[in-house]
Amino acid sequence: MADSANTLCEQGTEFMPKFDDRGLLSAVVVDSESREVLMVAFMDEEALAATRETGMAHFHSRSRGRLWMKGESSGHVLKVREIRVDCDQDALVIVASPAGPTCHTGAPSCFYRVLDGDRLERATV
Amino acid sequence: MADSANTLCEQGTEFMPKFDDRGLLSAVVVDSESREVLMVAFMDEEALAATRETGMAHFHSRSRGRLWMKGESSGHVLKVREIRVDCDQDALVIVASPAGPTCHTGAPSCFYRVLDGDRLERATV
Repeated sequence: MADSANTLCEQGTEFMPKFDDRGLLSAVVVDSESREVLMVAFMDEEALAATRETGMAHFHSRSRGRLWMKGESSGHVLKVREIRVDCDQDALVIVASPAGPTCHTGAPSCFYRVLDGDRLERATV
Repeated sequence: MADSANTLCEQGTEFMPKFDDRGLLSAVVVDSESREVLMVAFMDEEALAATRETGMAHFHSRSRGRLWMKGESSGHVLKVREIRVDCDQDALVIVASPAGPTCHTGAPSCFYRVLDGDRLERATV
C-alpha cells in the first residue's frame, strides 16, 4: 500500500473495511458489560451491511456458504452496541449485548476452555 | 463431523486445534490486566507451536507468508499468560501481558477507532 493510502487507512476517519481474498474479515464479539470475548467469526460485505442495518450481529458461514444472523434459530441474538475497527481495517470488534448464552453449547462464551499443558480445562472465570 | 467427534471437540479435554483450508486459525489477543482486545491475527501450526514453546505470541503473516513474533522488531512482545480455545477449536484467545503498545501506530490496542455512523472516531475508552 502506498504511504498516503496507508495513513488514510490507519489515521483517517473513513471506514474502508478490507476484506481478504475470500471476501472476509475477522469479527470478534465482546460482551458490552463484562468485556469478555464471546465468539469469533467472519463477516463478508453482506454480513457487515446486515449488521449495520439491523443492529444485530450477522456473519458469513464458511461451512454453509451463507449469511446467518447469530441467534436466528436459538433466539440468542447479539445486539450491537459499538463497532471498533483495527489499524489496517481488516478486523472488527463488535461490542454487543447477548440475549442469552452465546455458545451453542450453553456456555456464556465460546471460549470456555483453557489450555493447561497439553490438556483443556474448563475456565473458572 | 460425526456426533462423537463433535462432542470430543466441544466437551473433551484434548487440544485438537482446527486449522482451516489455508492452515490457519484466528487468534485474538486480550490484555491480561485490562481484558481489552489488543489485536487479531492468524496462527498456523508453526506459529502456535512457537507461541507455546517460547511463551511469546507468534503469528503467521499472510502478506509476508512467514512466521513472525509480535515485537520482533519493536520489542513490544506479548507475553502469554493463558490460551483459551473456542467450542469448535478453530479460534484462540491469547491472554497476554504487552511489553509496550501493541499497535505499530503507538496505540495500546489496534482497535483505537469506533464506527460512528459512516465515520470513524477515536475511541475514548
